[in-house]
This record gives sequence, structure tokens and C-alpha cells, in this order.
Amino acid sequence: MQINRHFLEVADSYLFSTIAHKVNQYTAANPDKRVIRLGIGDVTRPLAPAVIDALHAAVDDMSKAETFHGYGPEQGYDFLKQSLQDYYASHGVKLDLEEIFVSDGAKSDVGNILDIFGADNLVLVPDPVYPVYVDTNVMAGRKVQYMNATEENGFLPLPDETVDADIIYLCSPNNPTGAVYTKEQLQKWVDYANEREAVILFDAAYECFITDPTLPRSIFEIPGAKTCAIEFCSFSKTAGFTGTRCGYTVVPKALVREDSSLNKMWLRRQTTKFNGVPYIVQKGAAAVFTPEGLPQIKDTIQYYLDNAKIIAQAMDELGIWYTGGTNSPYIWLKCPGNMKSWDFFDLLLEQANVVGTPGAGFGQNGEGFFRLTAFGNRENTQEAVERIKALLK
Amino acid sequence: MQINRHFLEVADSYLFSTIAHKVNQYTAANPDKRVIRLGIGDVTRPLAPAVIDALHAAVDDMSKAETFHGYGPEQGYDFLKQSLQDYYASHGVKLDLEEIFVSDGAKSDVGNILDIFGADNLVLVPDPVYPVYVDTNVMAGRKVQYMNATEENGFLPLPDETVDADIIYLCSPNNPTGAVYTKEQLQKWVDYANEREAVILFDAAYECFITDPTLPRSIFEIPGAKTCAIEFCSFSKTAGFTGTRCGYTVVPKALVREDSSLNKMWLRRQTTKFNGVPYIVQKGAAAVFTPEGLPQIKDTIQYYLDNAKIIAQAMDELGIWYTGGTNSPYIWLKCPGNMKSWDFFDLLLEQANVVGTPGAGFGQNGEGFFRLTAFGNRENTQEAVERIKALLK
Repeated sequence: MQINRHFLEVADSYLFSTIAHKVNQYTAANPDKRVIRLGIGDVTRPLAPAVIDALHAAVDDMSKAETFHGYGPEQGYDFLKQSLQDYYASHGVKLDLEEIFVSDGAKSDVGNILDIFGADNLVLVPDPVYPVYVDTNVMAGRKVQYMNATEENGFLPLPDETVDADIIYLCSPNNPTGAVYTKEQLQKWVDYANEREAVILFDAAYECFITDPTLPRSIFEIPGAKTCAIEFCSFSKTAGFTGTRCGYTVVPKALVREDSSLNKMWLRRQTTKFNGVPYIVQKGAAAVFTPEGLPQIKDTIQYYLDNAKIIAQAMDELGIWYTGGTNSPYIWLKCPGNMKSWDFFDLLLEQANVVGTPGAGFGQNGEGFFRLTAFGNRENTQEAVERIKALLK
Repeated sequence: MQINRHFLEVADSYLFSTIAHKVNQYTAANPDKRVIRLGIGDVTRPLAPAVIDALHAAVDDMSKAETFHGYGPEQGYDFLKQSLQDYYASHGVKLDLEEIFVSDGAKSDVGNILDIFGADNLVLVPDPVYPVYVDTNVMAGRKVQYMNATEENGFLPLPDETVDADIIYLCSPNNPTGAVYTKEQLQKWVDYANEREAVILFDAAYECFITDPTLPRSIFEIPGAKTCAIEFCSFSKTAGFTGTRCGYTVVPKALVREDSSLNKMWLRRQTTKFNGVPYIVQKGAAAVFTPEGLPQIKDTIQYYLDNAKIIAQAMDELGIWYTGGTNSPYIWLKCPGNMKSWDFFDLLLEQANVVGTPGAGFGQNGEGFFRLTAFGNRENTQEAVERIKALLK
């Protein structure tokens, strides 16, 4: 009996446990201090009323034999896929229903998609990075090569023609940096991938925060993307579904490699190893796109965007360099005075009682940077910003 | 760019699509006939009132910031894991909370568990078999060896000492045969696995149908199982959650292979590639085990068991050999007159207007056998049985 020894190569991540440990130690020693957390990537606003109504109605459906729902299609109910099709159409992307796969979240799909690829591909991942991209590949025994996201390229790396990547991870708006690719920049990636028959895995989990109409919300807005890209998205940030669990993955029918349709391979993977998202949850998700739901969702997104603006304005006042802050819930700032990430973490915690996330935790290029998030409530965000300004002025 | 070419080796399953095609053809040609379906493995009774109440309350929690739930623990909330711990304790199995992993269903976990094993293991699978066991291994490039389940061994194969298996799939009560291993029989498997350092993947999805107190509901009732077995279970059949999606997997801490804890490996897999079950669904699942929920669930299970008894009694009257029918929702019968599975399917469809599942669809040893399920409603089950009796007497 042989275990998968690649699991031994996966680095343990101590980022969030180290943060929790430091915060706990500080609060135990300073019980009178009120610590404000702007470190988390989780939402805090409740589900929209239209979603709540739809969830209640769906629960009632499950209480009667006539309206009970058992096994549904593994790839999602048509009522939800049609809503998603319309949503994409609203920003100019035409999709077939069979190209949309509903899932329990982008994290699952970003990990599970690797089932359809061979082990010997060269995987290109930005640094800094959402750790799941790296860990899932290491577990599967794949080689990962990093591309540098830095202050010089605005944390938006572009293709290096000397590197022959097979699988390329892009996330825009980016976690952790909040940086957003333009259409012209994404076109470069699409052209690079098509030339090499590579595949782009495009994480669009934060697309709903884009307000600038010139910025792409989907990679499929870029000509040529349907022959080289798979897109992952989620209701987690769009509609506060982090604890309700619903996402979707788009695999175009035109995406063919080694004479095999990746769309059909993913369908086979999902029908074999997944059994669909709860009927109740899919009903709730579909309510997001109704005439009642859409403005409610937009209000919440605006709430977070206003938080981001408050933080960004403070950075402007302090003369601190950052990415994100607009079109993103993240502010990725350069630690003042060339401080290291963890030193700045300690300073903010101890002197301002504000918790953020050290950029070094997301990769080597994150050293000297720091992430603040807009997912807190308004009052806490404003107070945290006042404290940071008082400390750093 | 290299696809996972093992996907090309996975056989397409036409079993249920062929059935649907034949039934559609028949009903189109005979619109006056009322066809009764006893072929499906899906439940038909609604969720229990206690579950419905808990789901509504959880939806309300999600509507207010104070009680909103974002990201939860990937391996499930303690409130649900504690209910499961108590449930196992009620049939004599002691588990640590850290040994219980809540998931979106047994099908997902049975497939995903393979992530933690190397590619070169010899996998032992019964024939006939639930196709997911085979397909998930073929997709990962593993060799599958079959063990014969036959009329002679009551469709309960025992270890063959000449075969050195690394991973062994057992399902009891079995899908598709309804056969249930005794404690003595499972002990033989546990001893075999411990001697060889193999791992048993034990699918207990139908344990709730066991009414005979001498039969094991969990492999962990067998001494030694905690050093060689992983158990998968589900709320799908226990509480009608096929469309609500909640299951659980038990990986004992004592299960170590090549100096690695499989419990820790599975935790790493789930925290990296899964983001937990919806809070709402976990609240509904926990209500199954409350003083209100338990008797409601037992009523529904008894309803299906009574259906099974009605079918089994008809087989007794007709002198037809079968497994299952008690302690299981399935009746696996030998086609009368040595008919082949698909011939018997056609006969039942055309002459009795009853749909079942040809045993040949589950593997070579299924040829000449046929599956009926107890998941229909009472009236249809009774009428189907009368029609079958009239046809075969």
C-alpha cells in the first residue's frame, strides 16, 4: 500500500494560524484594547432578502413529496445555468448552457480541475499567490514555476516568451494584490496560450467588484479565449455565499487539447466524482440575478467598495504606494519605511490595534507588502483607518 | 500541454441512458399504459419536519449580520460532528471529533479519497459494483482487479489469500445487490487488510436500513478496523438528502501507512480542495439526530423497508432467488427461466409496464440478475408487484 508521497512535499501554511496566535497573545496581554480585523477574506454582510426568500421557498419545496427534489444534474439545474448565461450575456459573453458547470465553490473546482490534466505539465503561477494554486499542483506531483508580480509591473505579470508553460494561473481582480488586468494585457496572455496550446485557468472570483467598464470581468471578453481558457467564478463574494457554497466553472466547447474536448472531460469528472449543489442553494443563487436580487447584491458590493475607498484614500493621504482599492475589495500596500511584512504587522497590531495580512505569507515577492480587506463593517473600517493615519502620519 | 489520458480509458456508461431510451420509446408507442419505475436509486419521500424547521431557522440566521455564517471549518461544524459522534456511539463505536469529516456526499468523498493514495496500488473491487469505484480509479491510472460476487457466495465475496490487494472496496448493505456482510465476514476482511497493510474503503451509505441488531452498521464495530479502514456514509438514504447533499467520512487516527497519518492527509486534502458544506445544510443534517428528528427519519426508513418487504414477499411467492429485501432498500433477483438481464427488462417493461435495472449493467457477474428498489411510493410498489406476480405466475 502506497500513499501519495507528493503530500509530503506540500508546505504547511502557518500564515493565518500565526496571525491568530499573535492576535490572541496580544489581546490576552491587553484585554482593554479593541482590536479591529481587516485581515480576513470572508464577507460579513448577510444574504440579500431576495436570496433569503428563495431559500425559504426552496426549503418548503423539499417538505412535500410533489415538489421534493432528489438527485439533480451534477452540473447544475438549467434554471441557474440560464441565469448565469444571461449574466455573462450582460457583459457581452455568449455561452452555451453546456459550457457552464455549477459547483460548490471556486476553491473546489480550481483544485479538482487538475484531474483532467496530465502530471508532466509545466505550471506557471504568479508570486505572490493564492496558496491553493500551488498546493493542489504539488499534491499531484507537478512542477510549479513562479512568475514575478512586483511593484515594477504593478503586480500584473505578462507572458515571458522564453518560458513554455502548459498551465497558467491568472486571477483578476487579484487576490491578494487587488490588481486588475486590462483587456490589452489579457489579450497578451490569450495569444501566448493559443500559440503554445497552453491552458489558462482564470480565477474571476472577484469580478463583481469591477466598476470600470473598460476592464474585463471575464476572460471570455478577450478574442481567442475560448480556445485556451477555463474560468472559475463564485457567489461567495458576489452575493456573500462564503458559507452557503455555490460557484461555477466555464469550460468552452472550443477548448480542445490532444484531440480531446476539455468540456467533455470535465463533465465526465464531475458526473463521476461530484453529485451537484443542493437544490435549495441553487434556488438561492438563482435569486441573485432577479430584478429584486440584483440591486440588493449591488448595494452590498458597493458597501464593500466604499470601505475599500476609505482605506485607499488614507493610503493616498499617507503617500503609501498600493494596488487595488478600486475594482477590488483588497488593498495591497507597500509597508512604509521599507519595513518587512511581519514587522509592519506587529506595528499595526501593537500601536493601532489593527490586524492585516503580511504579504510575505503569499510568496517571496510579497515581502515588504501588506494586505488590508474591505470586508469589515463600515464603523470598524473607518476607525481602523483613523488609527492607521494617526500612527503613520 | 498534456491531458490526463487515463480519461480515455474510462468506459462510457450507457446503463441509465439506455433504460431511459427504452422507456421513452415504449411510452411513446403506448401512451395509454401507466409505467411504474422501480429502477431508480433516488428517494421520493420529502425531508422530515424537524429537518425542514432547522433549515428554515438556518436560513433566517443567514439573513442577519449578527447570526450570519461565512466560511466554516472545511471538515464540518462541531455541532454536526458531535451529533455524528453520538450516532456512532449509539451503535457502540467511539470516534474522536477529528476523525469525522463532513462532506457534500459519499460519492464525492469516495472519489476524492484517492488523492491521498499513490498510483501504483492494486485496487480490488467486487463485481457487480457501483461504477464510481471503478471509474475513479481508472481516471487516476490505477489497475483494478475484480473479485467475484455470485449466487454461490450470496454476493458477499471474502478475501482470497492469493491476491495482494492494496485498496479494497466494500459496500454493505450492498448497492446493487442488497447483500449485507455479517460481523464474522467483515472480520475476515479486516484481518486480511491488517496483515497486508491494505486499506479498506467501506461504503456504509445504506447502513440505516439494517434492522437486524446482529449485523454491523459500521466497519468500526469490527475489532482492528481502525488500523485499516476508512468509512463513507451519507444522509442521502438516511434522511432523504439526495438533493440536499450532506455526507461524512471517518478516517481513524490509528490509520497510518508509510509512517503517514491518513487522517492528516485527508485533512490536508479537504482544507486545500474543499470549502465545507453549507451552514444551512449542516443545520438541517444535525436535526436528523434530535429527539424530534430521529423518529421521523425512522418512519421514512420503515416506509421504504415495508416496500422492500412487499417486493421480497412476491419473490418468495414466485419462488425467485434474491438477495436483499431485508436490511436493504434493494432486491437483487435472479431472472426467472435463466433469462438474460436485458431480456427480463424488456419483458417486465412490455408485459407488466414495470421498470427495473438490468444487473448486467453493474458488471459481468450481474448478467442474469435484476435490481428492484424500494424507493417508490407504496401504491406504485404494490401495483407493480401485483403486475409482476400476474405475469410470472
